[in-house]
Amino acid sequence: VSGAWVMGIGKTKFGPTQKSTLHLAHEAIIAALDDAGIGPDELDAIVVANFLGGPNEGQLHLNSVVAGLFPDLHIPAWRVESACASGGVAVHNAVALMGTYPRILVVGVERMSDVGGLQLTRNIAMAGDRLLDQTVGLTFPASYALVAQAHMTEHGTTLGDLDLVSLKNHANARLNPLAHFSHKTVTLTEIEAGPTIASPLRLYDCCPVSDGAAAVVLSSTPGSSSRDIAITGSAVAVDAISLAQRRTLTGFPAAAEAARKAYAQAGITPADVDLVEVHDCFTIAEIVAMSDLGLASPAEALRMIRNGETYPEGALPVNASGGLKAGGHAIGATGVGQICELVKQLRGEASSRQVLRARRAVAHNVGGVGGSCAVHVLEGRS
Amino acid sequence: VSGAWVMGIGKTKFGPTQKSTLHLAHEAIIAALDDAGIGPDELDAIVVANFLGGPNEGQLHLNSVVAGLFPDLHIPAWRVESACASGGVAVHNAVALMGTYPRILVVGVERMSDVGGLQLTRNIAMAGDRLLDQTVGLTFPASYALVAQAHMTEHGTTLGDLDLVSLKNHANARLNPLAHFSHKTVTLTEIEAGPTIASPLRLYDCCPVSDGAAAVVLSSTPGSSSRDIAITGSAVAVDAISLAQRRTLTGFPAAAEAARKAYAQAGITPADVDLVEVHDCFTIAEIVAMSDLGLASPAEALRMIRNGETYPEGALPVNASGGLKAGGHAIGATGVGQICELVKQLRGEASSRQVLRARRAVAHNVGGVGGSCAVHVLEGRS
Repeated sequence: VSGAWVMGIGKTKFGPTQKSTLHLAHEAIIAALDDAGIGPDELDAIVVANFLGGPNEGQLHLNSVVAGLFPDLHIPAWRVESACASGGVAVHNAVALMGTYPRILVVGVERMSDVGGLQLTRNIAMAGDRLLDQTVGLTFPASYALVAQAHMTEHGTTLGDLDLVSLKNHANARLNPLAHFSHKTVTLTEIEAGPTIASPLRLYDCCPVSDGAAAVVLSSTPGSSSRDIAITGSAVAVDAISLAQRRTLTGFPAAAEAARKAYAQAGITPADVDLVEVHDCFTIAEIVAMSDLGLASPAEALRMIRNGETYPEGALPVNASGGLKAGGHAIGATGVGQICELVKQLRGEASSRQVLRARRAVAHNVGGVGGSCAVHVLEGRS
Repeated sequence: VSGAWVMGIGKTKFGPTQKSTLHLAHEAIIAALDDAGIGPDELDAIVVANFLGGPNEGQLHLNSVVAGLFPDLHIPAWRVESACASGGVAVHNAVALMGTYPRILVVGVERMSDVGGLQLTRNIAMAGDRLLDQTVGLTFPASYALVAQAHMTEHGTTLGDLDLVSLKNHANARLNPLAHFSHKTVTLTEIEAGPTIASPLRLYDCCPVSDGAAAVVLSSTPGSSSRDIAITGSAVAVDAISLAQRRTLTGFPAAAEAARKAYAQAGITPADVDLVEVHDCFTIAEIVAMSDLGLASPAEALRMIRNGETYPEGALPVNASGGLKAGGHAIGATGVGQICELVKQLRGEASSRQVLRARRAVAHNVGGVGGSCAVHVLEGRS
């Protein structure tokens, strides 16, 4: 990976909507092209990230659907899928292709809100192993509940710790107009009273079902704009798909490996990171992410959370956007949306949720229960 | 694209089987690694091609499923999907990544035979537009029937021409032990008597429903083996997904554009091509492919077919493997399998179906009704 620059970003609001997949993708794409100040004819390739277009909507071949927005362009385009890491993995695919295609549009999109509860649970479970996980009913809340139980046993994590993660991310989302729960004030009392989904995880430990899209324009060379943000590290790692195949439940080796590689590319250590957007599909996942990314040991992570150090004004802001938990999780768009959010922060354009001294940021996007992970290091021009 | 070499190939038999998706993928992967003479620890990345794992089997996140074959490897892996062009597009993705990942395994896999008729038709139709195509019942046989009708009107193509394509590909498949219909002798009388599927296409105009897998190991540098085959051209192009969005029915601009780019990279013209594997999901598609690839005008293509010049011993062997029509169409594996087949030919290892003077070959893999296309140029060491 020889580096890339983010020339433009575009993101829709995450949350239930009547807009079609193509409408959502179009909205993000046009915003990203406008932000980059280029036209579609200046693109060399398009990477589309999507997870459930087939099972949810009967629509595969989304690269061709998106191509319909640009008649006669005929540039290379494909869809990348890696479950909930589809967006981050697509960004990595594009970064790794910069030597061949110097300017690439990555668009992630997902529609989920039309699909009924049980059917959607079944569709999302397709990110887990058909035999080992699906046949025994190991849904994603159940998988992360196992992670939470093990974390509680090994590290003394409490329900109160999970509550604090949820409380922070809901508070952050109130400052992010594009967040799924931007409109909703959530109190600790409400969080504590949430019904159990998969013990110990309760309602407010779980991210919502979101529709949405996000797009970035990447370039192999920096443009003249000081708003261009460098991607100095980009890595993907995979692992066996089922928790049943792993040695530990309280860390994801794929995430640790992707982080190690991305830091090495960027020439940084975790201590150099100013803020992070991590994959908090469940509150416990944010705590696991902090240790997988080497930002804190599990014990340190719990201490930081209890001390409020992961708030936007704290020592290590985590998910200043509201994260997946309260910002929303439009699956194929999530990893791309993390990049959009961090670019805003590094440009100093994050308005009321702006993190001070935001110069180096990390995005962490997980597929399944750690079966795949993409980690990106972004740096502003200082 | 700076070039790549095929170090190893592996392909299962195409056709109905009880073997699981993972079993099929494993079989092709191990064969390709053995053929390349390397271990999995010598790979830098894995690209998985698959179309219908979600709708057919409830299994997405196949990159993580495949990762389970290599515990603790944690190398980058993702799934590429571009409908029926998924395999060829995945190979292109890998070729274009050689600057970043110098040794990549591409594995394409598909299971279709478990799924019932109407449900499978619906699932395959996900490669077409949900609104423009699916809601009006425009299945893939129906779409290609429109192409055939237009071709007959514009170019005087006859049912007899389609019959000749089918007859040749079935004859070729008899010499390919890995072909879906390797066991089946098909006569012109049987072809002519086939029931209508979507007029004018009849049963023997249509490729079968196949399970199967294929894998290739690609390297950015040639190995010491003279069996390494160079990929000197690799291109992907896309188009709007529905025929309703196109100006012509008798050619696919995405295929023509991908061919133009691939030839330019290889520094060749169509006249330099010794043999081709083209995407004959329906017999008419083989005729369209010949003109899209610039190998013949539509009129010349018909003349060549009538004169038997596309047989393995003719001036331009087309689908010496039996093609999709009789070799089988295990969708995600098809485009990768074409590369395997051409490598065998260029190595001189195609035994009874060996094409003489096979030095330069082209693979042509189409998604949907021309919504996407991958074209590769392969050259042996002479």
